[in-house]
Amino acid sequence: MPDGYQTLLCETRSGVMHVTLNRPELRNAMSLAMVDELLAALQAAQESGARAIVLRGAGGHFCSGGDLKDMSAAQGAPGTDGVDPAARVNARFGYLCKAYAETGLPVVAVLDGAVMGGGFGLACVADVALARETAVFRLPETGLGLVPAQIAPFLVERLGYSQARRLAVTGGKIDARAALSLGLVHGVHEGEEALQGALDAVLGDIRKGAPGAIAATKRLMRKARLTDAGDLIDEAAGIFASAVKSAEGAEGLTAFLEKRPAKWVRG
Amino acid sequence: MPDGYQTLLCETRSGVMHVTLNRPELRNAMSLAMVDELLAALQAAQESGARAIVLRGAGGHFCSGGDLKDMSAAQGAPGTDGVDPAARVNARFGYLCKAYAETGLPVVAVLDGAVMGGGFGLACVADVALARETAVFRLPETGLGLVPAQIAPFLVERLGYSQARRLAVTGGKIDARAALSLGLVHGVHEGEEALQGALDAVLGDIRKGAPGAIAATKRLMRKARLTDAGDLIDEAAGIFASAVKSAEGAEGLTAFLEKRPAKWVRG
Amino acid sequence: MPDGYQTLLCETRSGVMHVTLNRPELRNAMSLAMVDELLAALQAAQESGARAIVLRGAGGHFCSGGDLKDMSAAQGAPGTDGVDPAARVNARFGYLCKAYAETGLPVVAVLDGAVMGGGFGLACVADVALARETAVFRLPETGLGLVPAQIAPFLVERLGYSQARRLAVTGGKIDARAALSLGLVHGVHEGEEALQGALDAVLGDIRKGAPGAIAATKRLMRKARLTDAGDLIDEAAGIFASAVKSAEGAEGLTAFLEKRPAKWVRG
Repeated sequence: MPDGYQTLLCETRSGVMHVTLNRPELRNAMSLAMVDELLAALQAAQESGARAIVLRGAGGHFCSGGDLKDMSAAQGAPGTDGVDPAARVNARFGYLCKAYAETGLPVVAVLDGAVMGGGFGLACVADVALARETAVFRLPETGLGLVPAQIAPFLVERLGYSQARRLAVTGGKIDARAALSLGLVHGVHEGEEALQGALDAVLGDIRKGAPGAIAATKRLMRKARLTDAGDLIDEAAGIFASAVKSAEGAEGLTAFLEKRPAKWVRG
Repeated sequence: MPDGYQTLLCETRSGVMHVTLNRPELRNAMSLAMVDELLAALQAAQESGARAIVLRGAGGHFCSGGDLKDMSAAQGAPGTDGVDPAARVNARFGYLCKAYAETGLPVVAVLDGAVMGGGFGLACVADVALARETAVFRLPETGLGLVPAQIAPFLVERLGYSQARRLAVTGGKIDARAALSLGLVHGVHEGEEALQGALDAVLGDIRKGAPGAIAATKRLMRKARLTDAGDLIDEAAGIFASAVKSAEGAEGLTAFLEKRPAKWVRG
Repeated sequence: MPDGYQTLLCETRSGVMHVTLNRPELRNAMSLAMVDELLAALQAAQESGARAIVLRGAGGHFCSGGDLKDMSAAQGAPGTDGVDPAARVNARFGYLCKAYAETGLPVVAVLDGAVMGGGFGLACVADVALARETAVFRLPETGLGLVPAQIAPFLVERLGYSQARRLAVTGGKIDARAALSLGLVHGVHEGEEALQGALDAVLGDIRKGAPGAIAATKRLMRKARLTDAGDLIDEAAGIFASAVKSAEGAEGLTAFLEKRPAKWVRG
């Protein structure tokens, strides 16, 4: 493969990196290699100056969750550092979620078919999630005697504590419409064409924003989840003042006065 | 009464403890005795290995809130410990809410008629809340010059800060449909039969999950309400690794490979 | 002007202070003078014993955001205290949002037309927000290379972290119906008459609550956003006991027993 990925297809078009989970024969089950490659793809997108990263799945499913076979093998491997191999493998997936949750880059998830377990978690870390009407969400872990451990906190960030808890207790099986009403996804679209149109519209909206300004806003909002808004006034004022003086701020003002799109709109 | 409760009816069927608030002549107003008995019932359910606890009210109402007469009497009692009697009585109700909010056991509330004050609070601590179309919610406290004090924080946990605040300022009178759209309840059902069917479905979903795994997930999510997801990776990994090595994890994997329900499904 | 405001119209009717942003030729763009006057109006409402403060905009728009010209001028002014003038001006707006977010007084926003930038932020700090069907919300900052810095944390308080982040990344352009489904507003009404009727109903609900009790509930809920409910039991019990012993508590009980409205209902 030209880009060297085993489990992903990556393509950059119009300044947006499109990443496809590509193990369709296993409904894109997440192997250890896929975890590592998703981390690498995010880093590549950030370094290349992409305006957004889009995640989707090949073959009619987004992701059926962790690849149990692959994970069992890794868990059996003798640890050299005293850390439980099962914990190490699991934490690696947590770092993947964290990286996507904390990046300044806009992340869009496009969901269809199975969105389960770790796939459910990935859907929760995206800034924007668009679903086809075929998407079905589920948390299979507790039914297997396991815990949706890395996913649980990101469900709370996405859905709020109360709805996350309800889904965890009841197994979390919901369809696309229910996911929309919970804010798990932000749009439900019938058919591939409508879904693609919605994605294009979202990417168009993202392109209108200055990349540095979007990243700064995402960082500040993440902090605001756990901080009283009134305690962030001075920090927010400093961020605002920096933006005013930045190249983006200058270009934004000039473009506004000249009634033309800012340079970042076209990437 | 065989179980020794004065204010409750308790019955365990198919591994689920069904608790009915049973003061129908007072729309199940919450007396001090009822607070103590609800705490005792939860402890009994936990110790007996029940899979869930279901709360409902006798006689067409869930709970009309605190029993003002009963509480006035207790507040007039001379304190022996220097603590204001009104505060002590009120805190006792807070500990009840905390116990139900923090238990690893799934809690289901089945709501009809009046769901007021303390009853509103109980509805908020349940993992799953099902309402009949007759349910009417209200926070009468501020209209009496009082504060929905123990309830306020649990409303914030359930509804989020913004909607909780809105209801507090306006008296919180909403019907079942509005409660559904706020996530205060998770389903609205017309008639007793439909409500019972929905409860059976929820209990069926709960039975599919391993009890220890559900409890661990609830604990982790509670912590995640006030913690950045990225800071919980190592803790979550430890929880996951423990589950893999647990009896539940072994049974879950075996049952999956043998294509049979896990033992906990039948309880 | 009789009340001395340059940018606002203020009128107290039936114990409620009605504040109209009054720069219709600029769609009520927020100048530095308006920020100061909104702070003064809130303080006047609190000191006069008003039961609520209502914010709306003159001329078919709520507020189009910061007045860029006015802010540029202020930013160019030489600072005498070493603080960046842009940061100082921006922080001043943050203190305005904080004051409205933290007041014990009920705040109602009535929204139509443009609700942008700083106006979007003001809508988020109100306890209750009512919209006409004409209202259109937008976060124009990132499109100008700027950051919706003071607004961002209040969006998180209002919408939750996940929806706030989604709007920030995509520019936040939504109509009144979408705002309702996100909980950004609490009602959408067609035409001025329906909107006024909804406002009257909300003010009627607010008047039924005791002012001190409402303020105490708002304070407690604000704390509960960042605190585990179980950790607030003793504080809540103290608040409850104080209310029982207060003049409001006595009047509330007496009015209840005498089957008459409490004195605060009529103000």
